[in-house]
Amino acid sequence: MIRFYNGRVVTMAGAPRAEAAEVWTDGGKIAYVGPQKDDGIVFEREIDMRGGVLLPGFKDAHTHSAMTFLRSFADDEPLDTWLHKKVFPYEAKLTGEGVYAFSKVAVLEYLTSGITASFDMYFHNDAYTAANVEYGFRTVMCGAINDFDKRPEKLEDDFLKYNAAGELVSYILGFHAEYTTSRPVLEYVASLAKKYRAPVWTHNSETKAEVEGCIGRCGMTPTELFDSLGIYDYGGGGFHCVWLSEHDIDIFRRRGLYVVTNPSSNVKLASGLAPLCEVLRAGVGLAVGTDGPASNNALDMFREMYLAAVLPKVRNMDAAAMDASDILKAACSTGALAMGLPDCDSIAPGKRADLVLLDTQRPNMQPEHNLVKNIVYAGSKENVRLTMVNGRVLYENGEFFVGEDPEKVYAEANRLAKEITA
Amino acid sequence: MIRFYNGRVVTMAGAPRAEAAEVWTDGGKIAYVGPQKDDGIVFEREIDMRGGVLLPGFKDAHTHSAMTFLRSFADDEPLDTWLHKKVFPYEAKLTGEGVYAFSKVAVLEYLTSGITASFDMYFHNDAYTAANVEYGFRTVMCGAINDFDKRPEKLEDDFLKYNAAGELVSYILGFHAEYTTSRPVLEYVASLAKKYRAPVWTHNSETKAEVEGCIGRCGMTPTELFDSLGIYDYGGGGFHCVWLSEHDIDIFRRRGLYVVTNPSSNVKLASGLAPLCEVLRAGVGLAVGTDGPASNNALDMFREMYLAAVLPKVRNMDAAAMDASDILKAACSTGALAMGLPDCDSIAPGKRADLVLLDTQRPNMQPEHNLVKNIVYAGSKENVRLTMVNGRVLYENGEFFVGEDPEKVYAEANRLAKEITA
Repeated sequence: MIRFYNGRVVTMAGAPRAEAAEVWTDGGKIAYVGPQKDDGIVFEREIDMRGGVLLPGFKDAHTHSAMTFLRSFADDEPLDTWLHKKVFPYEAKLTGEGVYAFSKVAVLEYLTSGITASFDMYFHNDAYTAANVEYGFRTVMCGAINDFDKRPEKLEDDFLKYNAAGELVSYILGFHAEYTTSRPVLEYVASLAKKYRAPVWTHNSETKAEVEGCIGRCGMTPTELFDSLGIYDYGGGGFHCVWLSEHDIDIFRRRGLYVVTNPSSNVKLASGLAPLCEVLRAGVGLAVGTDGPASNNALDMFREMYLAAVLPKVRNMDAAAMDASDILKAACSTGALAMGLPDCDSIAPGKRADLVLLDTQRPNMQPEHNLVKNIVYAGSKENVRLTMVNGRVLYENGEFFVGEDPEKVYAEANRLAKEITA
Repeated sequence: MIRFYNGRVVTMAGAPRAEAAEVWTDGGKIAYVGPQKDDGIVFEREIDMRGGVLLPGFKDAHTHSAMTFLRSFADDEPLDTWLHKKVFPYEAKLTGEGVYAFSKVAVLEYLTSGITASFDMYFHNDAYTAANVEYGFRTVMCGAINDFDKRPEKLEDDFLKYNAAGELVSYILGFHAEYTTSRPVLEYVASLAKKYRAPVWTHNSETKAEVEGCIGRCGMTPTELFDSLGIYDYGGGGFHCVWLSEHDIDIFRRRGLYVVTNPSSNVKLASGLAPLCEVLRAGVGLAVGTDGPASNNALDMFREMYLAAVLPKVRNMDAAAMDASDILKAACSTGALAMGLPDCDSIAPGKRADLVLLDTQRPNMQPEHNLVKNIVYAGSKENVRLTMVNGRVLYENGEFFVGEDPEKVYAEANRLAKEITA
């Protein structure tokens, strides 16, 4: 058992609020949360929080981890050029070996940012899974089926295979996007949702052109189309959701769907500013993701939280438009629910020990009028003292405990990146 | 002499580009930049850059350092409430003792972000200067004269006094803003500009309401008004500059004025997105600042650089609208020129030894397709390995070398913050 003491805890049961408490973990789970007590236990390790704060780890609720291979490769170009000349051709050259190596870089980066689980949509799933399991990181894979797949049935195969792949890995039905997925494939996805009573996820209304294209093709928004096909009958949600209409948001509410916002990516690719106030006001669950590093270019939840909290203010031209508490809750807690990880949403006995310890004795967190706002508006990776996944400390004081020298990982990533983009 | 070796240098002479080189500093200056050579010198210290990159330190070209005292005190409120109920009444209670203590918190935070000089606008200037000089930090103070000042002549007194206050401190003429400064005071500022052939700075066109109010009062934009009064006859510039018209930008170009952008603050306070592409296209000098921590809430140039590079993309709905190189140049180099620190704009013999060493062996900087874009789009305080001001290492590997225990500074800041906001 590991004991965290001499600090504060934001359990995320209810609104975010820090309270003085100890947390004990036992294996992959949380065993105790509460005041100091002497149970005569001999702990495997006792961690002095030095007044810092323990939170449920951040959930990166939309990413493409292995896209680290294109980080800073094709920035500041028009979206079309970026996608068709700089992403697709090189993705075609990405092998399982590449996905394995570049996913490791991503996992290291997640850890520096206090991220304890990712919701990842990509390919070469065996290689991807291997990298995550080897490092002890938690990931939920999302189906990415589209018209380029030769065998749509792979979606069902993967769903069954990766949901039986151990406690760190799970799989959720999904497809790439409306504009890349023809009607028969969408209907097939809907049939799987029905067969397994399972949620479905996809890129949804990321750009204005995507929504207009869909309306042009079938007279409905992407959300309306998916709903009409039964794809959202058992929940799920959308990534990006920049251009949701009021009616779309109402469908999200009725179906219990989640919105994952990716503010950095939406700004950098000039997709737009998402209607997050409207989403929250409708009672729709909100989660936060980084998107892939080819578009963002960092896997940093502090950046995303900050943007998710402030961009709605400028979108609505109202400094009171969003409260930082709602965004911290989205990042730590709602993300877990969206990803099908209800045991990772809060700090309570029996929940998974997926935790981030923030150091508040740094200038950016001083003085402390309001801890939650300090975290969202001033927090940074500088404050991440420790990241624990499934009861194991994987990152602490800037060092990684993943069983491998990071410099070796970087060297391999650079070698492969050169090879692919040569 | 101190030697930096085994790394790369972005000198900022010309477009940002990394080259393998050594840098030697001697006292407060740079003594040598170039290939490894053996001059038989016995260095005081030799710093292995381990493949990292040395840049001219970031210039925080607009801030109110001591406003750390209100960090996270009044967020998520309408701009008016924030300013009139949560800022002004507490500022009135801020003493020199407070400015001294809270400026120290700010300087510590600047150092974590690789910032080597600040352009600060506030009050209790003696206390402010003391904090900076004690820590060895470089600051340029900006006059903040306005209608609440009982004695406008203090501007001239301060100008003379602080420009003779030693090599770390200088002072530039300035006033708070058009809407807080009546015509006679503006005319007095213009007379000083003329008398000393000196540049003048002010908050300029931060909000739409400010510009509309000015047009209502005098039929001109703030920039047109200042120009008509001769305030900008000897250069200077504006902070924020969110609502500059085309004609305003043309005045900036003709007068050789600088724009300092404060993107975090402008977004969080719902002021708007600044026309940075238009500014650069006109050939106007661009610098980057954090604004004060009451509005931002962090003093983090990585956040500002990222936003300055990506927000113009969404403003113009064009992913190619801004190039990261231009923003890195603005943050390291143009900021120095704007602040009247031409010796701090680049790494070359004779220039001041104000440097930041970035660690690139971190996951967020891997792989390395493009170092400059990695820094602007993926860089973070995590990468700041060392910050040197005037030849002295003030921050290294997360530790401060300012002659004082930071925990003592935080404790004092918290004590005073409670007292002021009680």
